[in-house]
Amino acid sequence: MKVEIVTTGTELLLGQITNTNSAYLASELNKLGYDVLYQSTVGDNRVRMEEVIRYALDRCDIVITTGGLGPTQGDITKEVCAKIFGRELIENDHTMQRIKAHFVRVEREMAPSNTRQALIPAGAMILDNDAGTAPGVVLEHNDKILINLPGPPFEMKDMFQKKVKPFLLDKFGLSEVIVSRVLNTFGIGESKLEDEIKDLILAQSNPTLALLARPGEVIVRITAKASTQHDAEQLIGNLEQEIRRRIGDYIFAIDDESMEAVVGRMLKEHKLTIACAESCTGGLVSSRLTDIPGSSDYLIGSVVSYTNEVKQRELTVSADLLKTQGAVCEDVARAMAEGVRKKFGTSLGLGITGIAGPGGATDKKPVGLVYMAVAGAQGTKCVKEQFAGNRLAVKYRASQTVLDMARKYIKDL
Amino acid sequence: MKVEIVTTGTELLLGQITNTNSAYLASELNKLGYDVLYQSTVGDNRVRMEEVIRYALDRCDIVITTGGLGPTQGDITKEVCAKIFGRELIENDHTMQRIKAHFVRVEREMAPSNTRQALIPAGAMILDNDAGTAPGVVLEHNDKILINLPGPPFEMKDMFQKKVKPFLLDKFGLSEVIVSRVLNTFGIGESKLEDEIKDLILAQSNPTLALLARPGEVIVRITAKASTQHDAEQLIGNLEQEIRRRIGDYIFAIDDESMEAVVGRMLKEHKLTIACAESCTGGLVSSRLTDIPGSSDYLIGSVVSYTNEVKQRELTVSADLLKTQGAVCEDVARAMAEGVRKKFGTSLGLGITGIAGPGGATDKKPVGLVYMAVAGAQGTKCVKEQFAGNRLAVKYRASQTVLDMARKYIKDL
Repeated sequence: MKVEIVTTGTELLLGQITNTNSAYLASELNKLGYDVLYQSTVGDNRVRMEEVIRYALDRCDIVITTGGLGPTQGDITKEVCAKIFGRELIENDHTMQRIKAHFVRVEREMAPSNTRQALIPAGAMILDNDAGTAPGVVLEHNDKILINLPGPPFEMKDMFQKKVKPFLLDKFGLSEVIVSRVLNTFGIGESKLEDEIKDLILAQSNPTLALLARPGEVIVRITAKASTQHDAEQLIGNLEQEIRRRIGDYIFAIDDESMEAVVGRMLKEHKLTIACAESCTGGLVSSRLTDIPGSSDYLIGSVVSYTNEVKQRELTVSADLLKTQGAVCEDVARAMAEGVRKKFGTSLGLGITGIAGPGGATDKKPVGLVYMAVAGAQGTKCVKEQFAGNRLAVKYRASQTVLDMARKYIKDL
Repeated sequence: MKVEIVTTGTELLLGQITNTNSAYLASELNKLGYDVLYQSTVGDNRVRMEEVIRYALDRCDIVITTGGLGPTQGDITKEVCAKIFGRELIENDHTMQRIKAHFVRVEREMAPSNTRQALIPAGAMILDNDAGTAPGVVLEHNDKILINLPGPPFEMKDMFQKKVKPFLLDKFGLSEVIVSRVLNTFGIGESKLEDEIKDLILAQSNPTLALLARPGEVIVRITAKASTQHDAEQLIGNLEQEIRRRIGDYIFAIDDESMEAVVGRMLKEHKLTIACAESCTGGLVSSRLTDIPGSSDYLIGSVVSYTNEVKQRELTVSADLLKTQGAVCEDVARAMAEGVRKKFGTSLGLGITGIAGPGGATDKKPVGLVYMAVAGAQGTKCVKEQFAGNRLAVKYRASQTVLDMARKYIKDL
């Protein structure tokens, strides 16, 4: 089945918002085995919207639109689609009741314009909206399927998962499944990684292999097609094993698991606690660790030490050391990690000191120079890095590096 | 001039990456007064790419593509476009030299495939790439203009600003300018804000007014068209003045200035210092404050106090208070703000304690309950909020609220 995604809305054509709906729908439809061949975007203009949707129906079997189902005069998608299929718009009782109930529930008065949302093309299947007032619809005609979904991503995703996916599976079954697995690597550059698995990339057919560089990490995406989930996963598993044999040390997580989630999970598994002493990262490492539910099990406390005085007084970094070597050096990073570990009595202490920029650099200490240390029962390890990028990039990369150091430290315990 | 943006790349059709190029180009082209009427996306398939670009040239005057200029066999945009305009691809010396120089500069060996990037359609204008190896091209034929830009956003933006914008301005001049100003509000809901300025929204023509709700804030975008920048700014200024008269208290910044930048600027102006005591925000407030260059001028240090013991020992919160009222209450937030202010000897101290969830709630203290305090020479102010959303949303909203409290505290000094 060939699919086109048509996103509508003048705010997209003006570039006021980024189109995330297309990527979401494309990813979900590909997983179900559909071929998304085109994505189009058009504004809230009757003539051009009709032209774009007609053309999409011409070249594809299924057309999915998002946007233009709201209560205002600018919301015209249902009207345009009803016209294309020669249907009338009729007020639907079931939908009207749902809209009224919605306003009772949120304790707000319903505006007269909301009644427009209960107008449904004759013969259409209604997709109830559990996350808002605008219902979606499915129109079928001459083997072509036209589906209208709401524009707000939260409502669109909810409706796609609960209504569209079951509809498609029910109608077409699942001829094949597409399964992806993402291996998240850290500490190896894109070109080096490519070299290590070049023969696998060149030989790929099913599963396919793709590399994608993200800030602070490179991901490897393995995608397999098969007639069952089990077969697809087996195909992936074989290739994953070979990749792990070569670059396993760099793989810190699979799929959506973040570095802070991995470190948190390992701390929990080993019943360890942690504390951070942050200078140039300014609290980012602690904030990332506390993004994970249940982090109060292992994060005891942290100190953001932006001045030398705080480093001395709170983390017992020696005044002499700060004076002779400055705040950005290996010994200070080590002292910070050890100091915060002792202060809070934790299993591990992290220390980060560096120059995030754009100011603060000297001849010998350029912007991006960061020292990161992990202190624990096995002694203190320290790494020096020269990061590229602006202030936020340096902060993020330093946080990612020190968390990866903690991951390896725990792994080797 | 009617414009269509055509983004190419199978990774877009698979939903593996979000298309940010379309929004960027649309926004920039609109500012220059061009009408972007369509956006299309197609994969690395010769037949379909040719079909999409031909159709775009049919319905628009200017077609801008992104992607498919790389060195691999999958990069076919220049070939397809040369075919459409009946041009040959010829190796270009100037570009070949630039590509070779690039590899010398980054101290990497040039792959043989990179020579493909020096192939240019006959008669095309070359757009040098200062941020990578792939040059862009401009093809003109029968009053139609076809521009190929590279896919990586950093390269595409650099080339658009340095090469495409001057080319368009030189060719068509500037018939009108479009200027936008964004007023960032905090502490007022979207519907209340709409009520306050409803008459202005209904009466809009030029400038236009749009509201957009973002996590933790609502923005008001004023957009004016005029023949000169000065006239457009005057139109905006008049409307902005009226809006400020009604909801000025809620406006914390204009355009891209973030809350942490505003607070940082005000701390600097008033020569004040700050320290944070963070429980449920886990370091996020400090991290946001230190995202701003020069924040070492005012942020002295912070304590992340995730346990009661740390709150007691580091922030001198009374053990009795913690025992009788628990860690999440007004008095603890106040004590944390005052304690951290005293500890670091700063002008201001911020204290945040709450339940970020999903665990940790009790009957009387639900997830999302947060107390935030600002301590300073004018005494301590505390606010209680019940935030909606997941853990990250609660953390972010609490950080935004306490920073806005600091902003108002400084304003009233």
